[in-house]
Amino acid sequence: MAFTLEDIAGRFGGEVIGDPTQRVGSLAPLDQAGPQQLAFLANPKYLSQVETTRAGAVLISPDDLEKLASREARNFIVTPNPYAYFARVAQAFIDLAAPKVQPGVHPSAHVDATAKVAASAVIGPNVTVEAGATIGEHVRLDANVFIGRGTQVGEGSHFYPGVTVYHGCKIGARAIVHAGAVIGSDGFGFAPDFKGDGDARTGSWVKIPQVGGVSIGTDVEIGANTTIDRGAMADTIIEECVKIDNLVQIGHNCKVGAYTVIAGCAGIAGSTTIGRHCMIGGAVGVAGHVTLGDYVIVTAKSGVSKSLPKAGIYTSAFPAVDHADWNKSAALLRNIDKLRDRIRALEAAAQKVQGDA
Amino acid sequence: MAFTLEDIAGRFGGEVIGDPTQRVGSLAPLDQAGPQQLAFLANPKYLSQVETTRAGAVLISPDDLEKLASREARNFIVTPNPYAYFARVAQAFIDLAAPKVQPGVHPSAHVDATAKVAASAVIGPNVTVEAGATIGEHVRLDANVFIGRGTQVGEGSHFYPGVTVYHGCKIGARAIVHAGAVIGSDGFGFAPDFKGDGDARTGSWVKIPQVGGVSIGTDVEIGANTTIDRGAMADTIIEECVKIDNLVQIGHNCKVGAYTVIAGCAGIAGSTTIGRHCMIGGAVGVAGHVTLGDYVIVTAKSGVSKSLPKAGIYTSAFPAVDHADWNKSAALLRNIDKLRDRIRALEAAAQKVQGDA
Amino acid sequence: MAFTLEDIAGRFGGEVIGDPTQRVGSLAPLDQAGPQQLAFLANPKYLSQVETTRAGAVLISPDDLEKLASREARNFIVTPNPYAYFARVAQAFIDLAAPKVQPGVHPSAHVDATAKVAASAVIGPNVTVEAGATIGEHVRLDANVFIGRGTQVGEGSHFYPGVTVYHGCKIGARAIVHAGAVIGSDGFGFAPDFKGDGDARTGSWVKIPQVGGVSIGTDVEIGANTTIDRGAMADTIIEECVKIDNLVQIGHNCKVGAYTVIAGCAGIAGSTTIGRHCMIGGAVGVAGHVTLGDYVIVTAKSGVSKSLPKAGIYTSAFPAVDHADWNKSAALLRNIDKLRDRIRALEAAAQKVQGDA
Repeated sequence: MAFTLEDIAGRFGGEVIGDPTQRVGSLAPLDQAGPQQLAFLANPKYLSQVETTRAGAVLISPDDLEKLASREARNFIVTPNPYAYFARVAQAFIDLAAPKVQPGVHPSAHVDATAKVAASAVIGPNVTVEAGATIGEHVRLDANVFIGRGTQVGEGSHFYPGVTVYHGCKIGARAIVHAGAVIGSDGFGFAPDFKGDGDARTGSWVKIPQVGGVSIGTDVEIGANTTIDRGAMADTIIEECVKIDNLVQIGHNCKVGAYTVIAGCAGIAGSTTIGRHCMIGGAVGVAGHVTLGDYVIVTAKSGVSKSLPKAGIYTSAFPAVDHADWNKSAALLRNIDKLRDRIRALEAAAQKVQGDA
Repeated sequence: MAFTLEDIAGRFGGEVIGDPTQRVGSLAPLDQAGPQQLAFLANPKYLSQVETTRAGAVLISPDDLEKLASREARNFIVTPNPYAYFARVAQAFIDLAAPKVQPGVHPSAHVDATAKVAASAVIGPNVTVEAGATIGEHVRLDANVFIGRGTQVGEGSHFYPGVTVYHGCKIGARAIVHAGAVIGSDGFGFAPDFKGDGDARTGSWVKIPQVGGVSIGTDVEIGANTTIDRGAMADTIIEECVKIDNLVQIGHNCKVGAYTVIAGCAGIAGSTTIGRHCMIGGAVGVAGHVTLGDYVIVTAKSGVSKSLPKAGIYTSAFPAVDHADWNKSAALLRNIDKLRDRIRALEAAAQKVQGDA
Repeated sequence: MAFTLEDIAGRFGGEVIGDPTQRVGSLAPLDQAGPQQLAFLANPKYLSQVETTRAGAVLISPDDLEKLASREARNFIVTPNPYAYFARVAQAFIDLAAPKVQPGVHPSAHVDATAKVAASAVIGPNVTVEAGATIGEHVRLDANVFIGRGTQVGEGSHFYPGVTVYHGCKIGARAIVHAGAVIGSDGFGFAPDFKGDGDARTGSWVKIPQVGGVSIGTDVEIGANTTIDRGAMADTIIEECVKIDNLVQIGHNCKVGAYTVIAGCAGIAGSTTIGRHCMIGGAVGVAGHVTLGDYVIVTAKSGVSKSLPKAGIYTSAFPAVDHADWNKSAALLRNIDKLRDRIRALEAAAQKVQGDA
């Protein structure tokens, strides 16, 4: 399969410069692309590669095009965002090349008689769909997926193998949920019911029933083995176009605002609200019951223990340095109050000297 | 379904004040509850809501009841721990409302002929129960659960979809294990068998067989995608009423004492002992081969590298602040020895001035 | 089953001292072993236990043997690395004792007609093997394992229940992959395609298709619920004999060098290269696009944000201390620039005093 630049611009927009009948069949980096391939320039520091590339055409922004010494003998599609354009074209090529999957329910799947499964859905081997669940058009549930009773899966969603969604959750259209992710597990809540102290303590933890659900907007992606707990009374909410990486934990009754991205190994404790368009770095921890405003960025490995209402970049992580040096600094930090006291003593002495003088 | 206050107090204890024939059918927060609902006051700061609530009755402690301006025209169940009481009643309402699941083994489940499954157990679709395993009364194993050979599951336990328990483990009564949790995977142990250094190094890591199991007490809850490794020689031990959140890792030969709670994303390295009634915060890391005493609290994101035998609260995490401010502080910390040296120099100079004076 | 010391040395090497016809049938620690058991001395501090053990024989290094007061009435196998020797013998005893599993495909497994499954492989219940996949000799796929189209699994590998490997991945010989691990999920990559700022922002994240795979060398072990993402264009690479613990996240296009070990809860962001023979501690985070040289050790809970080309030990983690003490130090650190300013002021004053003097 190969498409003319004219065809591509017709579908994805942009202006063709050069030969609109040039055909390309796949994508490649500037320095590796051949005459049947489409390359892209997303970072102006690779501008010189545009001059030397063998690519059949280059996706380029109007600004970068201006900077080129020569456009001779080259083809371009000019677009304000070559990287996003590349991503869309790449996805289209992949969809065309992917093996066609027939709609229907695999004979080994267990679909309750009261569940509604759209005719265009693909239900894989050993999938379980419980009573009252709704599976939208063109949904794809891979092997071993579990959909609990009453849960709704929006159209065009793709759940990879082994995803579990508990009962009473709502997943919006076009969700991508990677293997092993768990949505709707019980929030972590227990009432202490103890008497006495120390060795004489008796009693127990009493489980707080978690009767809320999880409500997920459209166009959300959730990474492998990520967990999102159901709410205690109201729902845990993930708004539209949130992107969550692997091994992320989101506690009960959190609300994550639209377009926010959360990198791998991050953990958000219960009842916390994250604004829209936030970026939560890898392995970040956010305490419970706090609020992050829109456009808050938290850098990797940092911990957030208080609300951060204002947009900005926040950090509390140190970079690793030589172990012995670190230990020296750490020991001095542990005794930093003594350094402060020594400064105070010096200040008092200086004061006295001044007084004496 | 609705119950009189008299019925509820008969089953869960407490003293009814007001109309014992008042009926309630569900639970709700004070500010949202209607006349058929039961509300609770767990935190005295919401006392004023008790005066204005429309709830059919309020769970309240004797102390808080004393503080009320008026009890007129209101119904109460007085109990020392309204929050725990609420949790118990809520669970009872949920159990009544839940669809009844018929005992029995789903036709798609694979139960070895030598496994013992109680008649009251519910074995879901695609479950595997291997040779010699024992499944107690009223156990519920959801879809895709795997129980290895010889493993015992105590009565009343509920394993959500996709839980894997390896061979030779013991799970006590009334366990709740959430989707994707793995119990009994191999501990991480390898003997180095290398010769030479640098590029000339040859040899390999030799796997240490992990022949212990995992032994879990009664009333334990384990979160989604949490992992608990089997012991190398002896068992990894989780005592009764331990509550573990999602995405927690517990290494081989750890022992976690009764009533301890461990929040999400925490990791406990191998051969570490955690005392009873401890609280391990989210994303805490505890090194291997250390011991935490009873009633130790470690705050979220902290790291424990040495034993903490004494009850107390321990911390090593910083809260995120403005990125530029943080970087300035971090740079000064990296050079804190220079600050110390400058203080020393000042002290020496001051000494000299004093000596001269 | 029991074997003579002569048999064991014949198979695993080492020199027998004492009675070569002594039989042992299992392994045990020095202080617990009986006359039919083999014990080992890996750490010279337990040398005195060798004098008193009841073990049928002791694995010992030549150096430690020299240190013994007496070898009388004892049997030894002398080997340079008793711990690795112990591990190998223990594994052999376990393999002998393990129930024999019959090769073949379980009737409930779904193996595509175009997949190649070796006759000696064991394919468990509810396993899915998609089109074009290759399963090598003596491979064991436990219940609910999913192998995507075109993926290759090398000979002698063992995948525990619920492992998911996406399409187009290569797993080398003798891999051990623990339950719930996910290999080949999409890397976390999105092109921003937004216009405007603040509340007026419009647009979306555009998914970058992830068309690379995951390529894993021989003798790799991967822990429970660990996730390894597929590459964006080229493969994510794990070289031979890498050992990865539970709940580890490895981003797209990472390369992990041979013999490196990665402890639990660590996260490696995308496009990062880790050298050979590295040791990455528990809960370590490594940023994307950095390079760690060979023999780099990062201690538990540390964060790596820049390349560390040189072998060495690197740290950025603090040990937890008393909460109130920590808060005091943390407050002073937050204001460490003020301490620096006070030192500067003192220095200026001292300079002035000296000038005056």
